[in-house]
Amino acid sequence: MDLQIIGQRARRASRQLARADTARKDAALIALADALLVCQDEILRANAEDVAQAKARGAEAHFIDRLTLTPQRLQAMAHDVRAVAGLPDPVGEVFDQTVLPNGLRLHKRRVPIGVLGVIYEARPNVTTDVAALALKSGNAVILRGGSDNLNSNRALVQVIHQALCRAELPADAVQLIEDTDRARVLELLKLSDYVDLIIPRGGAALHRLCREHSTIPVITGGMGINHIYVDATADQDKALDVVYNAKVSKPTVCNALGTLLVHAEIAPAFLPRLAARLVERAVELRCDPRALAILQSAGYPLLRLADEATDWDTEWLALILGVKIVDSLDEAIAFIQAHTLEHSDGICAQDPQVIARFIHEIDSSAVFVNASTRFNDGGQFGLGAEVAISTQRIHARGPMGLRELTSYKWVCEGDGHVRW
Amino acid sequence: MDLQIIGQRARRASRQLARADTARKDAALIALADALLVCQDEILRANAEDVAQAKARGAEAHFIDRLTLTPQRLQAMAHDVRAVAGLPDPVGEVFDQTVLPNGLRLHKRRVPIGVLGVIYEARPNVTTDVAALALKSGNAVILRGGSDNLNSNRALVQVIHQALCRAELPADAVQLIEDTDRARVLELLKLSDYVDLIIPRGGAALHRLCREHSTIPVITGGMGINHIYVDATADQDKALDVVYNAKVSKPTVCNALGTLLVHAEIAPAFLPRLAARLVERAVELRCDPRALAILQSAGYPLLRLADEATDWDTEWLALILGVKIVDSLDEAIAFIQAHTLEHSDGICAQDPQVIARFIHEIDSSAVFVNASTRFNDGGQFGLGAEVAISTQRIHARGPMGLRELTSYKWVCEGDGHVRW
Repeated sequence: MDLQIIGQRARRASRQLARADTARKDAALIALADALLVCQDEILRANAEDVAQAKARGAEAHFIDRLTLTPQRLQAMAHDVRAVAGLPDPVGEVFDQTVLPNGLRLHKRRVPIGVLGVIYEARPNVTTDVAALALKSGNAVILRGGSDNLNSNRALVQVIHQALCRAELPADAVQLIEDTDRARVLELLKLSDYVDLIIPRGGAALHRLCREHSTIPVITGGMGINHIYVDATADQDKALDVVYNAKVSKPTVCNALGTLLVHAEIAPAFLPRLAARLVERAVELRCDPRALAILQSAGYPLLRLADEATDWDTEWLALILGVKIVDSLDEAIAFIQAHTLEHSDGICAQDPQVIARFIHEIDSSAVFVNASTRFNDGGQFGLGAEVAISTQRIHARGPMGLRELTSYKWVCEGDGHVRW
Repeated sequence: MDLQIIGQRARRASRQLARADTARKDAALIALADALLVCQDEILRANAEDVAQAKARGAEAHFIDRLTLTPQRLQAMAHDVRAVAGLPDPVGEVFDQTVLPNGLRLHKRRVPIGVLGVIYEARPNVTTDVAALALKSGNAVILRGGSDNLNSNRALVQVIHQALCRAELPADAVQLIEDTDRARVLELLKLSDYVDLIIPRGGAALHRLCREHSTIPVITGGMGINHIYVDATADQDKALDVVYNAKVSKPTVCNALGTLLVHAEIAPAFLPRLAARLVERAVELRCDPRALAILQSAGYPLLRLADEATDWDTEWLALILGVKIVDSLDEAIAFIQAHTLEHSDGICAQDPQVIARFIHEIDSSAVFVNASTRFNDGGQFGLGAEVAISTQRIHARGPMGLRELTSYKWVCEGDGHVRW
């Protein structure tokens, strides 16, 4: 279908959705959660086609795994949709209420953004996740999934449409671009008459494409070169736990640790203890010369001298960790400022002045004190769910939940007030 | 100077500015306000060159007027800068504080956006206004003024640099692109490594240029096709005042009234009374057939049948008013939704249910009830000052003051917390 028509339909649906009350939106979400289980056979059949095609193409095992739906995964997806139904509705919230000296009554009222364009790759659960968050926040959404899961997405969107109809909400509130030609992505990025916000969910290349070609605001994020600085005043036992967790608990995600900075004073004691933990998971360490010397003495088996031209600026997404010794808080801060992507950076320290300076000067979407960077997540931060983790500096930073999918309008009430 | 270098310097300065305390920023602002008066002669001399060049080019009188500085205007500019010094500093504000069930302490902390790029036309006061707002909110700014006021802007930026130096803040916090080649604007719009937000201050063409070419987020705004709907339940005396004020108090600005909608029930009484007011200011009325008939009977001298294909979608910026009779609130809402640019739309009514529906369904940056659309302004809304009025739906809508020039970071404090 023509993208202009998809856009017009989305705009029209977004107006209806913006006015829909919470009960109706929740009814649609519950209907969707139910339908994911009732229609399980059709969805799994469609997904099996995608999987068969991917296998025929010789796709890698981890790709196939991400693509594959199972009854358990559908249950998890239904559970997530139901959880969104349980979250508070941000739309209509009144805030910043005031009465001006001239008697005008002023407040802001939260409204949906309007129409979202979400571009993502092969992970069918994103389809229901994003649809649920958009619906609850009163936004229409145009989905552009990968060609690899087109059959799965078609089946899922059909189920979403049934749920919308059951709740008497417009099916056009969730539309899928079925044409998998890459030119459609570029067209979507220019659809500024009908789309208010583009949310890319994918790698660096997708984000760059969106930033360079979109005439619509884009949420940039989902990439991190994250640091933890272990200060001389750190509680070393806790620092060990935090660093180990940040690196190994899920190394393939954007809030995992990239580079560890250790104060020279404690490095000789701290690094060998850390090595004893990291070796269990075969973490490769890319070290500056001083850290290398200490870790070589400790007999760590997976050591490399860091290539300073590239290693400090690489998002590993793997069991690799950069390690560098610094002589001061200043050096740590300067290093982080030079290399961070402003996703998640942290400090382990006990001295309140050191902590305060770190918080003041490090300007990432989330700054952690004696806690793992892995907490930078909508669920962990209590938002209930997230549509993205933003590393840009306007609209929203860090995890974006339902509230971050809204805008606001000013309401100004008078009694014949005029301005001369 | 090379724009890459300007960008790098701005980024560096923005880091220093982000850490500057309120007293230092205010000291720079006070120094600037003082210097605008002390250096009056140099500034006026530079401005006289711009004015002479504009006159030699045969520029129109209103253009020359906007361009011209006088001692009184410099005093007003100094007063505005001083007012910004008196506003509360948004940077460092802590909000959304919470303790999670696992004991993690979470809050958000307001931080500057970083580096702003402001593109504007011939009005030298914008230079000091924008510099003051950027400085107070901790942002560095790259200014691209029009070629028509290059000499004035050079002189003003020199004064700004002196003030920054006096307060020991980096001069690079405010930089002017002196090369007036249009290609520099396009280059600025692609400087995404160093610039975080583009704020165009000018007409529709400038906004379109920015939206289409920028790889940096752009604040869209500053244009309005604004409506007031006079309901059958309106207090007609108050509605007369509101409509008259919204149209004639300053017709050249974006919050002025564009189209008046009147309920059919009261139109025969209301329109002739309104006409009796509007005739004083020779307002031209472009009417739908029913309104035309009523106003012809009333003998209004400046009537035209509206061209429905264009008149409802034109921003007049002049003493012209569209007038249309509607039969219901529904019709008024549908008409506004079809033609508004979502800047400022209002209703005059007494029935609370009618008012509630209007507020619920009209989704403009500001919605007015029994008050003039002319109040959509940072100063009027109590923000102290404004850098723009946004009509886009992300980051900020309506008047943007100091707080709207900030972002936030999450701060998450634990005691060795990890996530498995």
